[in-house]
Amino acid sequence: MKTKDTAPKEGTISRNPFPNSKKIYVQGDIHPNIQVAMREIALSDTKDAMTGKLTPNESVTVYDTSGPYTDPNKDIDIHKGINPIRKQWILDRNDVEELNQFTSTYSNERLNDPTLDHMRFSLLKKPLRAKEGKNVTQLHYAKQGIITPEMEYIAIRENQRIDKITEISKQHKGEHFGASIPSKITAEFVRSEVARGRAVIPSNINHPEAEPMILGRNFLVKINANIGNSAVTSSIEEEVEKAVWACRWGADNIMDLSTGENIHETREWIIRNSPVPVGTVPIYQALEKVNGVAEDLTWEIFRDTLIEQAEQGVDYFTIHAGVLLRYVPMTAKRVTGIVSRGGSIMAKWCLAHHKENFLYTHFEDICAILKQYDVAFSLGDGLRPGSVADANDDAQFAELETLGELTKIARKQDVQCFIEGPGHVPMHMIKENMEKQIEVCDEAPFYTLGPLTTDIAPGYDHITSGIGAAMIGWYGCAMLCYVTPKEHLGLPNKDDVRTGVVTYKLAAHAANLAKGHPGSQHRDNALSKARFEFRWEDQFNLGLDPELAREYHDETLPADGAKIAHFCSMCGPKFCSMKISQEVRNFAAENDIIDDEVVQKGMEEKSKEFKEKGSEVYL
Amino acid sequence: MKTKDTAPKEGTISRNPFPNSKKIYVQGDIHPNIQVAMREIALSDTKDAMTGKLTPNESVTVYDTSGPYTDPNKDIDIHKGINPIRKQWILDRNDVEELNQFTSTYSNERLNDPTLDHMRFSLLKKPLRAKEGKNVTQLHYAKQGIITPEMEYIAIRENQRIDKITEISKQHKGEHFGASIPSKITAEFVRSEVARGRAVIPSNINHPEAEPMILGRNFLVKINANIGNSAVTSSIEEEVEKAVWACRWGADNIMDLSTGENIHETREWIIRNSPVPVGTVPIYQALEKVNGVAEDLTWEIFRDTLIEQAEQGVDYFTIHAGVLLRYVPMTAKRVTGIVSRGGSIMAKWCLAHHKENFLYTHFEDICAILKQYDVAFSLGDGLRPGSVADANDDAQFAELETLGELTKIARKQDVQCFIEGPGHVPMHMIKENMEKQIEVCDEAPFYTLGPLTTDIAPGYDHITSGIGAAMIGWYGCAMLCYVTPKEHLGLPNKDDVRTGVVTYKLAAHAANLAKGHPGSQHRDNALSKARFEFRWEDQFNLGLDPELAREYHDETLPADGAKIAHFCSMCGPKFCSMKISQEVRNFAAENDIIDDEVVQKGMEEKSKEFKEKGSEVYL
Repeated sequence: MKTKDTAPKEGTISRNPFPNSKKIYVQGDIHPNIQVAMREIALSDTKDAMTGKLTPNESVTVYDTSGPYTDPNKDIDIHKGINPIRKQWILDRNDVEELNQFTSTYSNERLNDPTLDHMRFSLLKKPLRAKEGKNVTQLHYAKQGIITPEMEYIAIRENQRIDKITEISKQHKGEHFGASIPSKITAEFVRSEVARGRAVIPSNINHPEAEPMILGRNFLVKINANIGNSAVTSSIEEEVEKAVWACRWGADNIMDLSTGENIHETREWIIRNSPVPVGTVPIYQALEKVNGVAEDLTWEIFRDTLIEQAEQGVDYFTIHAGVLLRYVPMTAKRVTGIVSRGGSIMAKWCLAHHKENFLYTHFEDICAILKQYDVAFSLGDGLRPGSVADANDDAQFAELETLGELTKIARKQDVQCFIEGPGHVPMHMIKENMEKQIEVCDEAPFYTLGPLTTDIAPGYDHITSGIGAAMIGWYGCAMLCYVTPKEHLGLPNKDDVRTGVVTYKLAAHAANLAKGHPGSQHRDNALSKARFEFRWEDQFNLGLDPELAREYHDETLPADGAKIAHFCSMCGPKFCSMKISQEVRNFAAENDIIDDEVVQKGMEEKSKEFKEKGSEVYL
Repeated sequence: MKTKDTAPKEGTISRNPFPNSKKIYVQGDIHPNIQVAMREIALSDTKDAMTGKLTPNESVTVYDTSGPYTDPNKDIDIHKGINPIRKQWILDRNDVEELNQFTSTYSNERLNDPTLDHMRFSLLKKPLRAKEGKNVTQLHYAKQGIITPEMEYIAIRENQRIDKITEISKQHKGEHFGASIPSKITAEFVRSEVARGRAVIPSNINHPEAEPMILGRNFLVKINANIGNSAVTSSIEEEVEKAVWACRWGADNIMDLSTGENIHETREWIIRNSPVPVGTVPIYQALEKVNGVAEDLTWEIFRDTLIEQAEQGVDYFTIHAGVLLRYVPMTAKRVTGIVSRGGSIMAKWCLAHHKENFLYTHFEDICAILKQYDVAFSLGDGLRPGSVADANDDAQFAELETLGELTKIARKQDVQCFIEGPGHVPMHMIKENMEKQIEVCDEAPFYTLGPLTTDIAPGYDHITSGIGAAMIGWYGCAMLCYVTPKEHLGLPNKDDVRTGVVTYKLAAHAANLAKGHPGSQHRDNALSKARFEFRWEDQFNLGLDPELAREYHDETLPADGAKIAHFCSMCGPKFCSMKISQEVRNFAAENDIIDDEVVQKGMEEKSKEFKEKGSEVYL
């Protein structure tokens, strides 16, 4: 890490690139000012076990969410924020204006409070907002047939350079449950999916630092990591590092779920330094503003909070507008009632006032705000089930119907919109969730928390939920909200975040394979080939967590020599199955085997040869 | 742990019972000498948040694999072995004889070698074998309509006292893909499933210490944990502890995959102290006997090994009899060739001799041995895919066809038989594995390794495979072989074994829920109710790993007071969704709400009440 006067203490922010990896940038075609960041993993040569001949292995290019932090050529100073790559694209559209000051009363109060100076991000920019009468959402552009730089960026990014892949084995075609994934993603395809409302690009004009990414069932499955401070305040550097750390391991997107003091200032630091879109649940902050008394929440306070956060650059808001007064009693006989924080806040508000949820009654007003900044809706599932006993019940599905209704309103105003889903759902009830959501919400992207497939494993809920997440991703879910091992028990630490993110990354990848995303299996094939050829370093480096893989390997065979050994600690040299099958294969290659008859003939010769050579293969 | 003169050093063997749990024994009805061990978890009372009224919660009884080790009333001395509960049942059948000496040449050689005295299990019993002309398999008894004590034990065990459950919520009916799970398991049902070949009870007459358990798709999904020493020898106590440890966390069954020196002696210690069935892969030991030179393997050496292990008490053998000479070339163009150790040994043998696999040609001879001891076949999948690229290919399915053919031969001789399956399989190709196996092997139980749903996460393969395991369990797989985080990288340590076992236990449970096993959801419901009511201790104790859950909780809120707090570290008191929904619920209960109209009315009153009380709920 580069040390500067204003930088936080050395080592706070994770910067080291992944082993044998380099950052590459792929230029746009329609928009030549686009530079799409990817990670290229270099591989070592394959050494033929018999002849010693070396054959090079092509490098593998992978989707990269880690941002500039893993590029040693980029200067990083969290006090300045990262490069706002989208800034010029936004300005070029000529439909935004720079405001002289923040619109939110609260923002201005905080800005003018000198006691907060020490914790303020120092390079505050003036906020952007749509010019009078303009709508600056990607949905709005898409509907008009405009391919934005964001859309082209995404098309290039999603393809992961599959055009450069020489497949090393046949590709398994997946089962995609009605998704329509093209063999190559084009910018026009991205546009059409956004226009259709089937995909969302979270991209607030005030968060130009984020690298564009897309949510939709015809695209790669994405994952979200929740971060955020709590009562036990962590430092601002630590908060930024949490975000950077989550992105490093693969978070496509983060949610800042901070509660407590100074969340306004913390959020600014996170957004200015986040290379991925940032979501929030604005009702949390609104509740802080009324000292935790849900009944005291008002539309005005909430509205000011939306604008405050929109002008900071939050890319999407979780809005619990589907928790209607009449649905609240449906939760009375549940095993676990209401488990969503936002849902319970709104339920309490409805109950106390005996009025309809003000998020529902003001939904059009919210749309009017969001389209000025291109903040997307993440319609919250406040009545999601908190136990398998409550899965797919009336309360859950009643709310989903309302979310479908709200989706239509958002779309009419050209506001991007996706839908949150459960929760705790046993395996056999997961598909119904996806199918119903597609139907009721007219294919708006689905974004689920897990789901957890059993309640009985606290401490292992990243796994109980990873199972459900992989399955619903396969069925068509666009984004999976991670769950860490601490779920239900406590706050995740850095290790938990890493475990949660990698678990969800592998679940998302398993879903991509099952959906048959073009090129997805390439990384599996390359890793398995490396494994088969005992290229240990390549096996580690192609994995989602090279450091952990290496660490585990070194526990039993720590010597450097072991990493080029043609066997491993599990079976030892005498029992190595890889060794013998490599021989079968070499033999086939040497004899140019094309059908079984030839094989059979060749085998007879091989049989002799083997007997002559004795046990040499077990060297 | 009780310390005795001959006992290993204090603390080696894990003995402490699970928190708030006691061992109970349920008596048999047909066979009153049966005492089925279960674990009963006592729960604390529910305290009404408003009235303070206490309501007791019924204890929860769970399936228990931990054996006598968790019963403080039992003496444990690994030098004596655990109580042979099945011994009298076996003798009562009057069809076995006690041999004066071991039948295996190798066994006798080892026995007569004084240099091995120090490591020998001292209380060697004389082996049992079927009397001349008798068949002592559970399948043989079942076909004759005999309900053995083993069968009744299993019926009682599988039911987990569901007759005593007062359901606290509706039970979700699962989707079971053609399985036919009764609402209550009877001993007659067990018998009929065994007779049909659709279920297997691994139960060697020389392993009377094992508590009977069943494999079959109409029963609870079981899990296997692999243990075994390797080149880096561990002590005998450590090996026994590995087995005890795996059972403690939920292994229904263990496989001793030892290679290297003294595996004969080690195995004796493990079996004498194992409360669950033990499986092996005899070809590993046979290979040791020919110094690792596969070509030197002979039927005679293998035969002697089978008898050696059968007379020690191994409950099932993995036999790679489906690796036929003509299938070997089919693996030539695979990404990862042959990855099964046993498969590659046999492939090499076939190749070297250009002869058909001797396990195949001698299959009837093997049956003749196995039925004398009731050792079950676990027909090995030597050609299973080692990467997603190789999943469901010709080699794999060709071998499966042969395993189906062998299943029929085994059944004709009344030898119990189940089938091993993959491996690495992407999600969308898992179901085909299960369906094909059911069809080809006439519903013989399936026993799979994972399957791993992606290759790209070394270090997390307990999770990549836990996903596939849960799914195939749901589709009908009878037993899931665990995978630890060290898979592909190194040898699992004790922590890895625990992680692997608990991961697979939760995957199996998720499958049981999805299949709709009666009573399975009871534990989920009880845990979720405890969670909702902030009965922290109960939440921990009902989980699969109470210690870890407690440890995670205490990391953020260590004070004992926190465990009775009505909120937790994640949201803090202001954001507690559980709190508000508890109020909604209390209100409903107080007002005896039965339909929505009443609710609506009641809510109006509640609204007033709430406003009067102000923010009290956030205390």
